[in-house]
Amino acid sequence: MQIVSEKAVKAAVSRADAFTAVESVFAAMATGQAWNFPVVREAIGHADALYGFKSGFDRDHMALGVKSGGYWPGNAARGLTNHQSTVLLFDPDTGQPRALVGGNYLTAVRTAAASAVSIQHLARPDAKTLGIVGAGHQAPFQLRAAVEQRPIERVVAWNRSPERLESLREAAQAMGLPFEAVDRDTLCEQADVIITITSCFEPLLTREQIRPGTHIACMGTDTAGKQEIDPAILASAEVFTDDPTQAATIGECQHAVAQGHIHRDAIRPVGGVIGEPGSFRRSAEAITVFDGTGVGLQDLAVARVALERAVEAGTAVRIDL
Amino acid sequence: MQIVSEKAVKAAVSRADAFTAVESVFAAMATGQAWNFPVVREAIGHADALYGFKSGFDRDHMALGVKSGGYWPGNAARGLTNHQSTVLLFDPDTGQPRALVGGNYLTAVRTAAASAVSIQHLARPDAKTLGIVGAGHQAPFQLRAAVEQRPIERVVAWNRSPERLESLREAAQAMGLPFEAVDRDTLCEQADVIITITSCFEPLLTREQIRPGTHIACMGTDTAGKQEIDPAILASAEVFTDDPTQAATIGECQHAVAQGHIHRDAIRPVGGVIGEPGSFRRSAEAITVFDGTGVGLQDLAVARVALERAVEAGTAVRIDL
Repeated sequence: MQIVSEKAVKAAVSRADAFTAVESVFAAMATGQAWNFPVVREAIGHADALYGFKSGFDRDHMALGVKSGGYWPGNAARGLTNHQSTVLLFDPDTGQPRALVGGNYLTAVRTAAASAVSIQHLARPDAKTLGIVGAGHQAPFQLRAAVEQRPIERVVAWNRSPERLESLREAAQAMGLPFEAVDRDTLCEQADVIITITSCFEPLLTREQIRPGTHIACMGTDTAGKQEIDPAILASAEVFTDDPTQAATIGECQHAVAQGHIHRDAIRPVGGVIGEPGSFRRSAEAITVFDGTGVGLQDLAVARVALERAVEAGTAVRIDL
Repeated sequence: MQIVSEKAVKAAVSRADAFTAVESVFAAMATGQAWNFPVVREAIGHADALYGFKSGFDRDHMALGVKSGGYWPGNAARGLTNHQSTVLLFDPDTGQPRALVGGNYLTAVRTAAASAVSIQHLARPDAKTLGIVGAGHQAPFQLRAAVEQRPIERVVAWNRSPERLESLREAAQAMGLPFEAVDRDTLCEQADVIITITSCFEPLLTREQIRPGTHIACMGTDTAGKQEIDPAILASAEVFTDDPTQAATIGECQHAVAQGHIHRDAIRPVGGVIGEPGSFRRSAEAITVFDGTGVGLQDLAVARVALERAVEAGTAVRIDL
């Protein structure tokens, strides 16, 4: 089997690779060629850690495996990433392990690729201003992937602690884009595409703030109780997701479904639009929302690409197990 | 992190090591210091494979991890083991991967260790004849671990295809024990301890066949629908298990519970007897049954020992992930 280190993954997987891999697996999910297995997520009662597994099988790309790991809030103080992930890929023909792949960088790029896929397939073609809500580790990844999907000319951003916006400013400027820290009203007035990437438990954006024609990618909600936007936004929007079941239970849609703002059948898999590009034609006035809950198949998709690229580049290490 | 290959595992883990590790984690489970996470098990729709994960956390031994793998029925024709397992251990303090450990040999020894633990704590002290029902890959492992727990002088065995009993005969003779292939009536008349290790879906032993004082370790039932013994045996026995919830749902007890022969509260964790040796005193006439369903913590326990021993022996391979 092969070992693909974090360093080898970073060198091997481009944003374009991640985009193609995630777009392709979303399409395979929509046609039933790929499916996720039940998620395991446990508070282990030690180090305040949440630990678990996301897994699945993609028959189109013969990717079978699991991402193990979780959230260790004390890691930052040790100089380690709080989110720790490791991907194990198996040979679907024999069940033998094919590769162990470092999953930290992959988790960031696959999450950014998901919102980028939603922008590519759902946002207005002439979107020029990108708005980002949140300023954590993932935010610059989101920015870099998003601006490649539309003729973005400018980035505005809001974060509860504005001093943390510096890494986003640097990411924007490195791509030659003007950047401005703004309040939330201004962000919604100016942004054609909004990405929310926070760990909030209450709505940060209201229905009144959102202009017609806006695309919102909600990328922060992956657990019961979390929330980033007003459920009334979802009621007035065309709603898409990576996984409708997860969206209705642990994603941004959970509150809108529970409160009766939307019916769970109204939450459409974005993969359907990818597979049949004509199946959704947005009007200039429509509000679209992508509820990115994060699925194991995204991890497997980018890990599979990392393995292929690293083997080609000679940076994978072969071991006998 | 460390890589511990199948070869290194075989050299590193003795039967005594496996016994101690499994006994110790059963005790930790009974006191709530160790617990298993929900099991994932999926028919992947390719190669007739069943694939999934068993996982847990043992706070007593700081073992956190997952066994991934499953059953690929076409492997034997390729010269590979049908059951394929790989264990990934994590550092509970940081979530970083600690070791990747080959899990095929470990699965056999941990399963054998479980029945051996049940014999040690539940069988009559003077048990002299061991009976084995089944003749698959696991059967010789079961035999070797069992005969070390009691003054066994003789082994009898039954299998639907008697010609497959040769590997059991060789294992018995290698340990200096006479071996005889018998019918099921004879097996039950003679054996003081019976291990069933099959993949059956119907009872192989009836209530009438079982003598007072017999200990039965049912090791083959780990899925809804499987069955090895008459539920009436369980109704007249003192019933123990590795995991009461699994026993009542996917273990040998599932039928007895569903049919009202026993109440699920009557299924006791064997770990309680290990932790408090005085808490169960068997009478010479009692029938005892151990329902071994197989839990992720067993895998983690033996993998942890394999890692320690292999690092000591210099057979673990350090890699950077």
